[in-house]
Amino acid sequence: MTARRRGRRPAGEDTRAVLLDAALSEFTDRGYEGATVRAIAGRAGVDAAMVNHWFGSKDGLFVAAMEIPVNPDELIPRLLDGDPARLGERVVRTFLTVWDANDGGTFTALIRSVSSHESAARMLREFVARIVLGRIVAAVAPDSPELRAALCGTQVAGLGMVRYVLRLEPLASADHDTVVAAIAPTLQRYLTGPLS
Amino acid sequence: MTARRRGRRPAGEDTRAVLLDAALSEFTDRGYEGATVRAIAGRAGVDAAMVNHWFGSKDGLFVAAMEIPVNPDELIPRLLDGDPARLGERVVRTFLTVWDANDGGTFTALIRSVSSHESAARMLREFVARIVLGRIVAAVAPDSPELRAALCGTQVAGLGMVRYVLRLEPLASADHDTVVAAIAPTLQRYLTGPLS
Repeated sequence: MTARRRGRRPAGEDTRAVLLDAALSEFTDRGYEGATVRAIAGRAGVDAAMVNHWFGSKDGLFVAAMEIPVNPDELIPRLLDGDPARLGERVVRTFLTVWDANDGGTFTALIRSVSSHESAARMLREFVARIVLGRIVAAVAPDSPELRAALCGTQVAGLGMVRYVLRLEPLASADHDTVVAAIAPTLQRYLTGPLS
Repeated sequence: MTARRRGRRPAGEDTRAVLLDAALSEFTDRGYEGATVRAIAGRAGVDAAMVNHWFGSKDGLFVAAMEIPVNPDELIPRLLDGDPARLGERVVRTFLTVWDANDGGTFTALIRSVSSHESAARMLREFVARIVLGRIVAAVAPDSPELRAALCGTQVAGLGMVRYVLRLEPLASADHDTVVAAIAPTLQRYLTGPLS
């Protein structure tokens, strides 16, 4: 391992920080798909095994670098475990729980970033489409998986915009059950229902 | 009329520009509700009648100052004119037509502004909630008008996010009929259907 040590910082934390910097640069330059674990480790001057050690996978590194507070490797199996007819409800509830945790601050920062930087939009687009929504839809929908994933994206992103960015009442402070009751049927139709 | 003249600019255009500057300052300082036509005209040093002359109303001045490419005074009566059971379809189609016009550039600029400035978020929140969606919902929904307006906001804002900001396919370049078929039923339920 060749990570540089600075001051009294422990070597492990240093490796992690150097990897995050390198990942952000690599994802920005090449997009989510184009970036490789090998290239990121190369930029950071550490062994590629360190990515697995600290982040589990390229996905884990991506969510850490983008400061997204969920790891799809843990999240998706949990969402898919249960009645497919109630998947929409679990998606809405998970989204609310994750983003409510810091009062929507992370969501707002993400929106600010993607609306200001095409590179951030490109990374998030690929990540959301192929990794998060793509995997969920692939597990339940027989037809139009890409359209279904994008439609789910509209409802989830829009809920975040209204609740955390615009802070429009009564949705800004509605309890989870109220939001789920109103919005879960939309997600469920986008996931498994008729689209036309 | 006391508008200043600068160079060869015609006096009328000058009045309009001075009013737009004054409106943006007043809306930023006091929010949509708190701002008054009289105070804006006062800031601009012109007679309040000039607001009606150039913008028709406070709403018209707001949409011009925020560079929103629709005037609710013209838009809303047109949306409400027709079968209430197909209002969701008309809302989606209008949104697509307006924002597609410059390839979503105005929508993206608006999102960038509201995610970066609390004052912009506050103005847009009041405007969207009370003026645009508020009026539409009030005309068709017997119950929960504020929740319905906010829910409509989630789907419309989310469609814009995915189509124009993230540019996620296939929604980024889907034709209007495809988008309307998939999304209009959601708007229709939020407008007039059961919410739980």
